Amino acid sequence: MQIFRLKDYKVIPKLNIEMSSELFKLEQYIVNHSCDIEHWFRTQWQEHQAPFYASVDLRNSGFKLAPVDTNLFPGGFNNLCETFIPLSIQAASIAIEKICPDAKKILIIPENHTRNTFYLEHLSCLCNILQKAGLEVRFGTINKEILEPLNLKLEGNKSILIEPIVKKNHGLVVNNVDGSSFRPCAILLNNDLSVEIPSILENIDQTIIPPVHAGWCTRRKTQHFEYYNAVANEFASFSGIDPWLINPYFEKLNGLDFHEHKGEEELFTKVELLLQKIKKKYDQYQIRHEPYVVIKADAGTYGMGIMIAKKAEDVLSLNRKKRNKMSVIKEGSKVTEVIIQEGIHTEETIEGAVTEPVIYMIDHFVIGGFYRVHTTKDKDENLNAPGMHFIPQPFETSCLMPDQGRPCDDEANRFYAYGVIARLALIAAARELEDNS
Amino acid sequence: MQIFRLKDYKVIPKLNIEMSSELFKLEQYIVNHSCDIEHWFRTQWQEHQAPFYASVDLRNSGFKLAPVDTNLFPGGFNNLCETFIPLSIQAASIAIEKICPDAKKILIIPENHTRNTFYLEHLSCLCNILQKAGLEVRFGTINKEILEPLNLKLEGNKSILIEPIVKKNHGLVVNNVDGSSFRPCAILLNNDLSVEIPSILENIDQTIIPPVHAGWCTRRKTQHFEYYNAVANEFASFSGIDPWLINPYFEKLNGLDFHEHKGEEELFTKVELLLQKIKKKYDQYQIRHEPYVVIKADAGTYGMGIMIAKKAEDVLSLNRKKRNKMSVIKEGSKVTEVIIQEGIHTEETIEGAVTEPVIYMIDHFVIGGFYRVHTTKDKDENLNAPGMHFIPQPFETSCLMPDQGRPCDDEANRFYAYGVIARLALIAAARELEDNS
Repeated sequence: MQIFRLKDYKVIPKLNIEMSSELFKLEQYIVNHSCDIEHWFRTQWQEHQAPFYASVDLRNSGFKLAPVDTNLFPGGFNNLCETFIPLSIQAASIAIEKICPDAKKILIIPENHTRNTFYLEHLSCLCNILQKAGLEVRFGTINKEILEPLNLKLEGNKSILIEPIVKKNHGLVVNNVDGSSFRPCAILLNNDLSVEIPSILENIDQTIIPPVHAGWCTRRKTQHFEYYNAVANEFASFSGIDPWLINPYFEKLNGLDFHEHKGEEELFTKVELLLQKIKKKYDQYQIRHEPYVVIKADAGTYGMGIMIAKKAEDVLSLNRKKRNKMSVIKEGSKVTEVIIQEGIHTEETIEGAVTEPVIYMIDHFVIGGFYRVHTTKDKDENLNAPGMHFIPQPFETSCLMPDQGRPCDDEANRFYAYGVIARLALIAAARELEDNS
Repeated sequence: MQIFRLKDYKVIPKLNIEMSSELFKLEQYIVNHSCDIEHWFRTQWQEHQAPFYASVDLRNSGFKLAPVDTNLFPGGFNNLCETFIPLSIQAASIAIEKICPDAKKILIIPENHTRNTFYLEHLSCLCNILQKAGLEVRFGTINKEILEPLNLKLEGNKSILIEPIVKKNHGLVVNNVDGSSFRPCAILLNNDLSVEIPSILENIDQTIIPPVHAGWCTRRKTQHFEYYNAVANEFASFSGIDPWLINPYFEKLNGLDFHEHKGEEELFTKVELLLQKIKKKYDQYQIRHEPYVVIKADAGTYGMGIMIAKKAEDVLSLNRKKRNKMSVIKEGSKVTEVIIQEGIHTEETIEGAVTEPVIYMIDHFVIGGFYRVHTTKDKDENLNAPGMHFIPQPFETSCLMPDQGRPCDDEANRFYAYGVIARLALIAAARELEDNS
């Protein structure tokens, strides 16, 4: 995979349709009431502890601006604009002060795959941020196939060392060459624990960040969006907007088996009802797009186990290949639970390519974002598809600079609005982690 | 006064002499041990509350890098690089969360003068930062001559409104046009209270930030540098360096009256002893510069009431003009107490002009800095002189990015070291405010 950046591209994506007056009102509300909003966020963060880090995938259809996924193990720090790395460093040092002020050494547990150079670049960036925030950082893997330290070369003479983890006196360590060991004060998970909580993480006396129940073996998208429902309603009630404008409808379905055709009828019914529900809203707002839903593994990540349905029949006519695709996700986990989520048309394009904003946060601070620019996909397709060749387009303007003196679709104002919606999802994640702990 | 920026100047000032091996060792220590240093700072900030904001004037002589003044009412936010404003916004929002999480409205009390356009630009920047951090901001003046709201025009169609403060039900308010009033949750002092604590600030139920005892009517430079002595020694003991390398010697003298020649002899003696003490250190490090001391009003600001002495006789041979200059400082306060501070030669120059780094902090975060570039002064003169026409040269690199892979006089590394020394002064200020409260 070759990375290609639209280096010279300096403006924000074009919104292909005229924004609906409701969404325009929302963006305008957000920009004009940034004080109230920030004050409201402050009260939220007095009550809830934000996750250590997170990324939120947003979609802007011109009539709707909403999160479609909240990732508690973000994997694209390398896609952020370098200029704003100091913001990440500052935010990371606050996060450390809160969660483990005494920490001096930290061990990052990365994903098990070691061949994705983008991911390795990301790890290198994450390491850099934490080092500059004042931590000694090592990478320890829970991949049982890695028995020796693995030095992986990156571009520009950089490399990262991924080492096997050893459990010793109720703590995780990595061994030093001289026979001593590096014993971290805290463990930072950058592995989403799709399959299980590995036993090596049990009964250790080090702080694990985020907690293991943030992993996909226990976490469910539907639960997250239930929490998001509540947050979106609270935000809507004080801003006086229709919560649907910032919240995709969804349904949950359990007990599925795509191979055995088990649960197909129920899926059909739920998809049909959801499409009707969306259509009703489209009619209310005179939106002429075709409604669609996205069916995703409820515990899925990496854009695996995802399909689109524009009519309920779509879920019945799956061929063998599609069935296979929906049945298993990362590391071979079987899909039996899905979220059926209202699809949000991507109406942002860069040079004709559909784009999706991704917002990055450390603690409760928006530290930046980037666009996933996809040159081969349609606007109603999933942009986080397996093996996707997206071009990351870093936000070159901070998300912290609302400017009432400028139009609300000004770059800084739009990014501020994105940061606000992403933080709503972050509050949902914070409450979710709290209640599951 | 016309502002002129060295827009195209992208490199850091030249250090005219080769750095002494000791200072080189210090810079190298700071860059190579950033983890230990940040960890140490974290423990300090667990114990002490940083002032809301501060700026620290540093000097780098190539053999010594030390703070010469710590300002708790910084007045040059307009001199910082715009790129890093998000860092200030993020830091301000943290400071607000800590000090007054419920605050929604804040009143800034500026200095009494309203004709210094640089200062007004600064107020506009400060206001912008606080607004983006989520506060409604108004300016209320304690200048008794301002009886009506004063709308002051700035460049680029901007303006700021400075309004008279009214005391109402144990709180400060400014009146709205409609007869209602703006009642802030907190009062932010940007007025250094040189003369007195105005009675209007007494017995009010709003939080005053920083506390009134941070004002120059009670604060003393010598007390600050006593606290700094302790901090510098602690830092020196864990880094293994000679604390003198980061700490200027100083003496205090009370009961002076320059007009009446009162205290002159004692001043002579103290200056002589201090010069000898410095000379001894110069000999130890084989420094061939001529030692000098700076005599400053102990409660002085704005570069007023400052003189230089290269020999003790200098303090006896003052002419009438110089006596006058030393006798009164800002707003006519009489000088009776002075600090006699070891002078630190400025060996940093930009295009031949001597420069002095100024580091800005919000809460305990270094958010940027700039160089005071002075085209007419000598390296052993005070660069913060009254009516000075300095050219501010913003740091275009963050102070948060130490890079062990690069030489320690690399821009990012040098700025990081400056940020570390400035934060030592900040700890001193934090302890000072704590003990005086």
